[in-house]
Amino acid sequence: MIREIAILTIDPSRAADFEAAVAKARPLFEASADCLSFALERVVETPGSYRLVVGWASVEAHMEDFRGSENFQKWRALAGPYFTRPPEVVHTEQVI
Amino acid sequence: MIREIAILTIDPSRAADFEAAVAKARPLFEASADCLSFALERVVETPGSYRLVVGWASVEAHMEDFRGSENFQKWRALAGPYFTRPPEVVHTEQVI
Repeated sequence: MIREIAILTIDPSRAADFEAAVAKARPLFEASADCLSFALERVVETPGSYRLVVGWASVEAHMEDFRGSENFQKWRALAGPYFTRPPEVVHTEQVI
Repeated sequence: MIREIAILTIDPSRAADFEAAVAKARPLFEASADCLSFALERVVETPGSYRLVVGWASVEAHMEDFRGSENFQKWRALAGPYFTRPPEVVHTEQVI
C-alpha cells in the first residue's frame, strides 16, 4: 500500500462546510477497489490546513485510474471551491 | 489521539543508514506510555524526504513530556546527524 498525503488549504471560516463536503465525497474514493483507507486530518497549529490521507494499492491507482475517473471530477467539484491554494500531493510508502 | 507528522530531509545516499538509525531510535519513543503509534514513511517522488508519523495521547505529551526527556536527546543524537535541513513538524487530529 502507498499513501497519498495531500495538503489542503482553505479559509478557516468555512471549515464546517468543507469538512461536510469531504465527508460527502468520501464514497467517491471508496468506490475504487484500489482505495484502501480514507482520512481527513486537521492541523492543530494552523486553522484551515488539512491533510487528506488516502491509502491506495499503488501510485498508478491514484494518479492514473482515480484521477482519470469521473469520481475525481465529482470530488474536485465538491471540495475544490474551498481551496485557497492548489493542493500539494506526495505519495509515501512505509519503511518502519 | 493526535498525530505528529514531521518532514525529515536527508542526503538520499545515506538512506539505508538513516533508516537503520530510526529503527534503533523507535524504542525511545515507545518507552513513553503516551506514544500510541510509530511509523517512518518514505516519499516516493523525492529521495531523501521522509515523514515520521507518531501517534501521541496529546500535543503536550509530545512537545513537553517527550521533548523535555532524555530520550528525545538520544533520538536527536541518532537521527539528527542525517538531517540536511531542520525537521518541520505539525500535529493533526482526525476529522473523518
